[in-house]
Amino acid sequence: MNVAVVGATGAVGETILRLLEERNLPVASLGPFASRDRGAVRFRGSALDVRAASDDALRDFDVVFFAGGEDASERFVPALLERGSIVIDNSSTFRMRGDVPLIVPEVNAHVLRAEHRLFPVANCSAILLCTALRPIRDAAGLRSVWVATYQAASGAGRAGLDELLAGELAVATGRAEPEPAVFPSALARNVVPQVGTLDDAGWTSEERKVCEETRKMLSLPDLFISATTVRVPVRTAHGEAIFVETERETSAGDLASALEAAPGIVFHRDGIVTPRDVEGSDDVHVARLRASLDGSGRQFALWCVGDQLRKGAATNAVQILELLLARGYVAA
Amino acid sequence: MNVAVVGATGAVGETILRLLEERNLPVASLGPFASRDRGAVRFRGSALDVRAASDDALRDFDVVFFAGGEDASERFVPALLERGSIVIDNSSTFRMRGDVPLIVPEVNAHVLRAEHRLFPVANCSAILLCTALRPIRDAAGLRSVWVATYQAASGAGRAGLDELLAGELAVATGRAEPEPAVFPSALARNVVPQVGTLDDAGWTSEERKVCEETRKMLSLPDLFISATTVRVPVRTAHGEAIFVETERETSAGDLASALEAAPGIVFHRDGIVTPRDVEGSDDVHVARLRASLDGSGRQFALWCVGDQLRKGAATNAVQILELLLARGYVAA
Repeated sequence: MNVAVVGATGAVGETILRLLEERNLPVASLGPFASRDRGAVRFRGSALDVRAASDDALRDFDVVFFAGGEDASERFVPALLERGSIVIDNSSTFRMRGDVPLIVPEVNAHVLRAEHRLFPVANCSAILLCTALRPIRDAAGLRSVWVATYQAASGAGRAGLDELLAGELAVATGRAEPEPAVFPSALARNVVPQVGTLDDAGWTSEERKVCEETRKMLSLPDLFISATTVRVPVRTAHGEAIFVETERETSAGDLASALEAAPGIVFHRDGIVTPRDVEGSDDVHVARLRASLDGSGRQFALWCVGDQLRKGAATNAVQILELLLARGYVAA
Repeated sequence: MNVAVVGATGAVGETILRLLEERNLPVASLGPFASRDRGAVRFRGSALDVRAASDDALRDFDVVFFAGGEDASERFVPALLERGSIVIDNSSTFRMRGDVPLIVPEVNAHVLRAEHRLFPVANCSAILLCTALRPIRDAAGLRSVWVATYQAASGAGRAGLDELLAGELAVATGRAEPEPAVFPSALARNVVPQVGTLDDAGWTSEERKVCEETRKMLSLPDLFISATTVRVPVRTAHGEAIFVETERETSAGDLASALEAAPGIVFHRDGIVTPRDVEGSDDVHVARLRASLDGSGRQFALWCVGDQLRKGAATNAVQILELLLARGYVAA
């Protein structure tokens, strides 16, 4: 299996390379690409030159990961699909297309069909949210969801992470702080209640993605869902404060059992789990599950965290490839 | 008017001193107290020795502010009330007593009676929340509230702020990080989904305060309210992602007008406002008001921030004294 990674020098692209190694995927040859020739990346002990992506250069690969933003996906994906390549795309470009599956293996692997070639990877916050919500949906039905996010700097790529660390060093040592360029306000010693762009209705692009993609992945087109997405001065793991109203009466104990048994989830029955605790983890970590104080048996609150470079992006992308291999839809 | 401040060297106590100066309260003499003799504080250009609080030492003051935690309030307040002193207490000790008003002047000044002597100052997150919710309650009724908080280190006092800054300097410069002592996990480069203590039902003491005190202050004992309170690596201003369901159909435009006209609120019709923007401000800042995407006209989301040492504590405490003076319940 010949595998290309477009955006191989970015934060998500590098994590895909690490995961292909860690999880020992059957990669015969690996092609690292970026928007232009730029240095080398390491893969299985070798240094591989990073080449500029082009239709010609990508045509020999069976599987192409995109981790380089909307532009590269729009430009190269159509030709790859015509050629029959498998495309696993971390950009938002194709996620909401009706004929395209949006797969989190623990949530909705059943939507995968042999004829599918294009696999967008959902928004990082939506992946964590859906993974945490699926056991609740299955146990008691989901009527409504409200979610407030605590999103890491790496969600804005390496540039976002660098901007946080530069700002943090400046404020910690009393030096002049660089002007924010990636984030709409300085992120060090701050939280910024805008991820993505703001539209005329007052919603951000990130909030719309979280709502729309969650409905699609949970196969609940009429789910009520509202989201406020907030950037926090954390490196790579997102947190989410989730409130749910279930269709049927249930208990925190029953939902805890469902979450504990769910794939891809580490359930913390007692105490807390923080973003720093889960950096580098491939799982979604859920804690602080509790019933609301009104005694209705239908309102619950919970907290989840996950590394957005891992389960929020690269891990989910590589899991999709593993699923294709397991089903025999891609030959190793 | 002779005024004492118990806890005068703490973060809230010092801010009360600054506000008594800034707002030019008619203070004839000021007595700064702490749990033990410790140095001096400045007030109106003079250095005043800080004395150990005692029943005897406090008996000559007409008005006593408590900014020193539950212990001092429990110990000294009963004798002060017997003597007829006015007590304005930032601890949680007496907040939920049925015969005690819990006043945010912009929200529920009408509950004040001439015979009241004891005025607890509500939880900082609850004060911000109620101030933001009151115009919505008045415009369209409030059925349900879900709130996720982004709480500053200063909510845990000077020790909390010091722990954040020490941790921040360590991680920013690559030095060994001190073990967390004030917070349950390291706060630098992190968010910690536990404020206060966790109980057997899975709720924190802070979350219960936010829910119970909000119901009391809004005079909505049956309001559905759920909260997840999270500490973030920010100095002194709290943020809150608030979701509301109104009783009656309304629009974001109508609610925006109500918020814009409300006392104590700076409403940001466009764009965002962050904790760092409002450090030192006496107002509650509201932004990102929008209708949910379901078109029901009854579900809305908004964001608010406020300095927890100011409007969340000291400003509200001093405003209560101003209200008593304006009503003639305390002689200047």
